Amino acid sequence: MITVVKIGGNIIDNPDKLNGFLCHFAAIKGQKVLVHGGGKLATELADKLHIPQQMVQGRRITDAETLDVITMVYTGLINKNIVADLSAMGCTSLGVCGADADLILADRRPVKEVDYGFVGDIKHVNGYMLFGWLSQGILPVISPVSHDGQGQLLNTNADTIASVIAVALSAYDSVSLIYCFEKMGVLLDIKDNTSVIPTLNEEQIKKLKNEGLIHSGMLPKLENAIQTVKNGVESVIIGHADDLPDIILGKSGTKIS
Amino acid sequence: MITVVKIGGNIIDNPDKLNGFLCHFAAIKGQKVLVHGGGKLATELADKLHIPQQMVQGRRITDAETLDVITMVYTGLINKNIVADLSAMGCTSLGVCGADADLILADRRPVKEVDYGFVGDIKHVNGYMLFGWLSQGILPVISPVSHDGQGQLLNTNADTIASVIAVALSAYDSVSLIYCFEKMGVLLDIKDNTSVIPTLNEEQIKKLKNEGLIHSGMLPKLENAIQTVKNGVESVIIGHADDLPDIILGKSGTKIS
Repeated sequence: MITVVKIGGNIIDNPDKLNGFLCHFAAIKGQKVLVHGGGKLATELADKLHIPQQMVQGRRITDAETLDVITMVYTGLINKNIVADLSAMGCTSLGVCGADADLILADRRPVKEVDYGFVGDIKHVNGYMLFGWLSQGILPVISPVSHDGQGQLLNTNADTIASVIAVALSAYDSVSLIYCFEKMGVLLDIKDNTSVIPTLNEEQIKKLKNEGLIHSGMLPKLENAIQTVKNGVESVIIGHADDLPDIILGKSGTKIS
Repeated sequence: MITVVKIGGNIIDNPDKLNGFLCHFAAIKGQKVLVHGGGKLATELADKLHIPQQMVQGRRITDAETLDVITMVYTGLINKNIVADLSAMGCTSLGVCGADADLILADRRPVKEVDYGFVGDIKHVNGYMLFGWLSQGILPVISPVSHDGQGQLLNTNADTIASVIAVALSAYDSVSLIYCFEKMGVLLDIKDNTSVIPTLNEEQIKKLKNEGLIHSGMLPKLENAIQTVKNGVESVIIGHADDLPDIILGKSGTKIS
């Protein structure tokens, strides 16, 4: 069993939370992969450097200067500090982005209504290389930057990276993908943290969607999860970063399978 | 034969020069490793962020904020762009710092007359891991940051990293180490670029040193080269970055063996 865990900005932005999370993550038995997002650090650095940031539908417009900021913060500052921390916890970790070892090949997103700039849509993942590292006892820590194979780095959605990596690894072993975020799971009532739905399948998601019971921010996550499961990943769990040990035990979060 | 090449700021600071250099580097036959320094980019970023920089005898005093800058610029911006470029040239490259895969373990430099801050003195190199990557056809691109194994990243001299890596790899195969800089080699007359000394051994270096014929900036490089050769590396060549193809052919630079 390979466990792929994705963490986002809400953990990365808080050093104490991150450290606690990494302790729990390091304790997961078996082969594992960590995919991290960016958090506020990139926006903060861009502000300090007076590089205006523009978001469209929650996605960062990535001009050349912003790409440099992202590369510095994601593939450097965040990635290498996580690697050093995990190493101190006894995990031999390898911090990579998608350009490393041609891990994630992407196309620059075509310009339609919006020009997202240097943003990548993934077209290939080198699962063989990743699985090779896991077999050697190396824990890959993946930052959300890919490349086009022509020398261009590309800012790439970390949720998507986690999903395609989990799918690529499912060719070699059964894979569980865990998305950690700031809620306890998929909530039936967004205001009630105890209303977590423990399990969901495609049919139930469709039903909830038709009934308008799924929060708009959650819908793409669930549709992505369904697709990931269809593509060979055993289960996708969405849960709270603080609850990782219980998520691993199947006692917390929402499991989509 | 494994070729380890070290490039410094004079190439990294100039995108055209860097690209030309990488073309030549990618064309080197056989297994190879690239070690890169930092260049002006880190100082420029520190200036923009109003983080005062202090140099003592050419070494950067690395406080916590400066370490973040170095981590962003060296392990992120420079490293990943080189990896993407080399990938476009057909080399499957893996950009790492010394924390990755526990590659380079260091101690924080003890405070004597000067407190260098988060600067590392290397105590162990994981040559087995490096050679494993080379055997897999992966080209390691190494940035000058190590770690202490307790979660602390450490700014580390790139010349030293190149040397200890060459020595560690010499346990597995014969290794040639090339230091690229802005001169044609060791010059008998610092003002005359045609006065390159083609070969030097320990005795000759001692003689030139006693006669006061070695430029003070060159002396530590030569003493480091002698030590590297004594520790098992076949040859150390010091030459001009623009001349890499001729250095490889033995037609340029100063060879210390």
